[in-house]
Amino acid sequence: MTEPIPGFPDSLMTPTPETGFQLAIKLSRLGVKVTQPDMDTLKKLRPKYSKDADALIASSQVIAIHYQTIAAANDYWHTNKGDVS
Amino acid sequence: MTEPIPGFPDSLMTPTPETGFQLAIKLSRLGVKVTQPDMDTLKKLRPKYSKDADALIASSQVIAIHYQTIAAANDYWHTNKGDVS
Amino acid sequence: MTEPIPGFPDSLMTPTPETGFQLAIKLSRLGVKVTQPDMDTLKKLRPKYSKDADALIASSQVIAIHYQTIAAANDYWHTNKGDVS
Amino acid sequence: MTEPIPGFPDSLMTPTPETGFQLAIKLSRLGVKVTQPDMDTLKKLRPKYSKDADALIASSQVIAIHYQTIAAANDYWHTNKGDVS
Amino acid sequence: MTEPIPGFPDSLMTPTPETGFQLAIKLSRLGVKVTQPDMDTLKKLRPKYSKDADALIASSQVIAIHYQTIAAANDYWHTNKGDVS
Amino acid sequence: MTEPIPGFPDSLMTPTPETGFQLAIKLSRLGVKVTQPDMDTLKKLRPKYSKDADALIASSQVIAIHYQTIAAANDYWHTNKGDVS
Repeated sequence: MTEPIPGFPDSLMTPTPETGFQLAIKLSRLGVKVTQPDMDTLKKLRPKYSKDADALIASSQVIAIHYQTIAAANDYWHTNKGDVS
Repeated sequence: MTEPIPGFPDSLMTPTPETGFQLAIKLSRLGVKVTQPDMDTLKKLRPKYSKDADALIASSQVIAIHYQTIAAANDYWHTNKGDVS
Repeated sequence: MTEPIPGFPDSLMTPTPETGFQLAIKLSRLGVKVTQPDMDTLKKLRPKYSKDADALIASSQVIAIHYQTIAAANDYWHTNKGDVS
Repeated sequence: MTEPIPGFPDSLMTPTPETGFQLAIKLSRLGVKVTQPDMDTLKKLRPKYSKDADALIASSQVIAIHYQTIAAANDYWHTNKGDVS
Repeated sequence: MTEPIPGFPDSLMTPTPETGFQLAIKLSRLGVKVTQPDMDTLKKLRPKYSKDADALIASSQVIAIHYQTIAAANDYWHTNKGDVS
Repeated sequence: MTEPIPGFPDSLMTPTPETGFQLAIKLSRLGVKVTQPDMDTLKKLRPKYSKDADALIASSQVIAIHYQTIAAANDYWHTNKGDVS
């Protein structure tokens, strides 16, 4: 009934806050792709919305929401506290 | 008073982060369908909004909010950590 | 000072994820009705916004936010896990 | 430095989910009033936005966000579970 | 690298729900000021957006999000429960 | 597959609420930069959106969402409670 989502990670765990943010970016984009799976259409949209401040801020907001989820999943990388340089 | 929602899952539990994301997509769409139950009207809207960057980002945001709920319900799939490949 | 809200439930507890979603829909609509209590005005708005993709996605988002609250209130229906068919 | 907010409650505790929702409505409106304290200006805006579906849905969303806070503050009125009719 | 934010509080703790709301208002405004630090530009914008229902509702939403954070930080002022009049 | 994000912090821990807010601002901007990495394009957008009330409020909202994450990561700086002046 539901098709697999290409490129979806097996886990929400990431080693660092940065890789967690990259995962949030990925989930945000996957959320767009499932609604518009045609890559050609998406590529045509990009030049326009990537120069539109409102769309950029809205994209940043979706990333922020996913980052809340991923940061909580990783217990905010607390165990990393001491050993990151 | 309230009619059943066709296709609504019996549980928010999913085996993996990916199937949880698929459930988030489903809930997002059900949230649209309950407001506009007429499938013909919805189908007419799709070609337009699926080419509109703002609508795609907004859809991705609703998925992100539902994913927060589903990820929390599944305790972020922590028990999956070791055994997914 | 504050008038009762007709149809407001006595509890956020629901037996299933589906009935919880129906409650989220109800709260979303009550949030609209308290701002615009005149049913005639609301009925006039419906044909238009129910054909507007942006308004449908925004409605779905409000449902998603209320669903977070209701799902948490019901501990994500964890006790239901085994016995739903 | 910061002036008092007229009508602000002394507590986020409410006896029922319904009175909690009324508090969420109140906080949403107070959030508007602190930005535009002039009641005459606010009254002039009301006829227009209360007939605008987008504004009504956006208002419902702010209520939903405050309701998350208030419901959590009241532990989702769990102690009410048995004794509400 | 990052300059101090004038007027930022030393703590998210506030004695009451009302002072917590005032802090939420303050953080919302600081979020605007860091993007547009020029006070003259901000003052020019105010007459217009403070008469725009959409902008007022959006401002109220940012306050609501910060209030979630502050209310959680203060454990919803639970210890206040008995002794506020 | 995913390139590093220049300037991303090693930890979400910050010594104070203020430095946490600065981190929230940084994450909001990084969320924009990953979608539009070309600094020249971003610089061209700034004069316009920094004079647009809607964009400023939307930016403040993204900061507010990231601040929720960072504040939770830092346990709301509770250990700071006594020793800030």
